[in-house]
Amino acid sequence: MVVKVYGPAYASPKRVLLCLVEKEIEFETVPPFGFLPVIQDGDYTLFESRAILRYYAEKYKSQGTDLLGKTIEDQGIVNQWLEVEAHNYHPPLITLVNHIMFSPHFGIVRSEQVIEESEEKLGKVLDIYEDRLSKSKYLAGDFFSLADLSHIPFTNYLVGPIGKGYMIKDRKHVSAWWDDISSRPSWLKVLEICK
Amino acid sequence: MVVKVYGPAYASPKRVLLCLVEKEIEFETVPPFGFLPVIQDGDYTLFESRAILRYYAEKYKSQGTDLLGKTIEDQGIVNQWLEVEAHNYHPPLITLVNHIMFSPHFGIVRSEQVIEESEEKLGKVLDIYEDRLSKSKYLAGDFFSLADLSHIPFTNYLVGPIGKGYMIKDRKHVSAWWDDISSRPSWLKVLEICK
Repeated sequence: MVVKVYGPAYASPKRVLLCLVEKEIEFETVPPFGFLPVIQDGDYTLFESRAILRYYAEKYKSQGTDLLGKTIEDQGIVNQWLEVEAHNYHPPLITLVNHIMFSPHFGIVRSEQVIEESEEKLGKVLDIYEDRLSKSKYLAGDFFSLADLSHIPFTNYLVGPIGKGYMIKDRKHVSAWWDDISSRPSWLKVLEICK
Repeated sequence: MVVKVYGPAYASPKRVLLCLVEKEIEFETVPPFGFLPVIQDGDYTLFESRAILRYYAEKYKSQGTDLLGKTIEDQGIVNQWLEVEAHNYHPPLITLVNHIMFSPHFGIVRSEQVIEESEEKLGKVLDIYEDRLSKSKYLAGDFFSLADLSHIPFTNYLVGPIGKGYMIKDRKHVSAWWDDISSRPSWLKVLEICK
């Protein structure tokens, strides 16, 4: 059964593709509809990117890269940083994406004040990451996990079209982490598929 | 080993307490510090409420209420609705909490426009819930799960101190769901502990 992934042009579906490549799961991409991303796996349908990541990481635990951690305690730490990504890192970053990349489309009016405030918020989160990554190679420990993976597609906007790569480069440990995770063959493959 | 839960006075830690009661896990509450909620379980520390819920639901899968679902597919649906709670339901609700309950504390200036917009956003999410709950008793299916549990503490603010209980009552299936989940002995116990 080939997994169908809807809407590969956007960043959240790329998060899902990245997970499928790491897990060595066959898929095909389909133009988008409604909620994004959505997967169809036989007659099973799931939306919300992080729920999809968890589903495949669990279902194919022993295939491809282990993205969950070996023990329940490690998995707790992976989930903790995945929540930090969702609730602290992603909101100011998606605001930057909307105001810098997508304005004036989708009815978004660019606001310099919002951009400035979002950059400040994101900087504070990156300071916490800098501290964390000075103590461990990846966010959840010494292994690459869903917590790291989930950052890749939108951070790629930050260092690329948003033009704020200095937010990563100016932080030594964050910069080394980004160089590591963004050069994984899985991410290069997703970029190739979606170009 | 008794689990320590920091900051029981607030709603997010109540989400954790509710999970511990459902899972029949012993705990003690401790006044808050920094990030909220935090648990200490021996020398293991975890923050972010939904990561804590997942940790205990998984670690004690066969003890107390099963909050994850029996199959990996069911768990995927639980995670999907837990993400909807986190990204769609919670943000407008916490904005209502801040502007109605906590203004003018914490430097929050009450804005009627923000309140109106947040109520409209939350109403649209509740319309999706109304449709979903017309087809299944609980969000993830015919069983109570983390997806339902995670809604309880903040929805209790909505129907109580925020004074917008009509948003629940005016939707037949949402109302029946709320009556069901908010009368669980675990929630009554958490309210008793935290009063």
